[in-house]
Amino acid sequence: MKKDFPLKKVYTLLESGPVILVSTACGRHNVMPMSWHTMIDFDPPLLGCVISDESLTFKNLRATKECVVNIPTREIAPGALACGNVSGAKVDKFAKFGLTPVEAAKVKAPLVKECYASLECRLHDASLAGKYNLFILKVVKAWVDTAKKPATFHHRGGSDFFIAGRTVKLRAKK
Amino acid sequence: MKKDFPLKKVYTLLESGPVILVSTACGRHNVMPMSWHTMIDFDPPLLGCVISDESLTFKNLRATKECVVNIPTREIAPGALACGNVSGAKVDKFAKFGLTPVEAAKVKAPLVKECYASLECRLHDASLAGKYNLFILKVVKAWVDTAKKPATFHHRGGSDFFIAGRTVKLRAKK
Repeated sequence: MKKDFPLKKVYTLLESGPVILVSTACGRHNVMPMSWHTMIDFDPPLLGCVISDESLTFKNLRATKECVVNIPTREIAPGALACGNVSGAKVDKFAKFGLTPVEAAKVKAPLVKECYASLECRLHDASLAGKYNLFILKVVKAWVDTAKKPATFHHRGGSDFFIAGRTVKLRAKK
Repeated sequence: MKKDFPLKKVYTLLESGPVILVSTACGRHNVMPMSWHTMIDFDPPLLGCVISDESLTFKNLRATKECVVNIPTREIAPGALACGNVSGAKVDKFAKFGLTPVEAAKVKAPLVKECYASLECRLHDASLAGKYNLFILKVVKAWVDTAKKPATFHHRGGSDFFIAGRTVKLRAKK
């Protein structure tokens, strides 16, 4: 079960570079995986996402100014990755790849039920969307299943990934 | 030994979200760790980096329009992280934390010898540096020790990190 999560802790979910699933709604729901994202500010949390201008997600985000950033774990990797190989213009990717859209609280784009975390976002700044496909999003509501040990997956190119291992404490040298 | 690495493969080093060490030179060498970065384009590789405007790195990058993005591994984590707790305005962090500056090929900022990868960068676009501390950098030369299995470390907030495990193949559902 995902629960409300403090916005000022959102950076702890994203800055380690997990593959994310960006969901949008504009008519039919759509969802795509990607890895090109970064935190930009802590609170309110701003994030930068680079989204191909050939994708339906790009069009939907421009049109609706909303999306949800969902963080999948290893268990659903095959379905999550499959969402990157076909266009939502042709296929209902939720239905085809076993993902469940769930109503969000503040945006019309759906949460992905199978992801351990979902961040409802509003488009904050599209000034570099034309030049670099870079959108700056503001997280307005965060949902996290804190019971899960998140085995996020992280892209190394092609079909190579690594799975996040257990969390360790690393201390700075004094 | 780090060797020349193809620019079009730079994304494989960065999109999994490792902690990086950004080195600059403006008078004395400086270096700081951070996690807020994303790929923006493949070839030439562009990357976005969010660098605090309270840091010496911010000032140096603005002034020299150059830096090196170095990728450390677990072995040097204590020294790498310590570089984030003190300002280069007060201390020579290379000397204090056991890092070795090595001359780069195309920029004046130094490579960090102890890092398995180093990317020489020129400032490409600072149009959002004032508003978000966001710099867009172009990688002009990449050096990688491909013999190393890179145990990069990835931040989860505070002193929590995970270490990248072995690379696995993940396939999309058909």
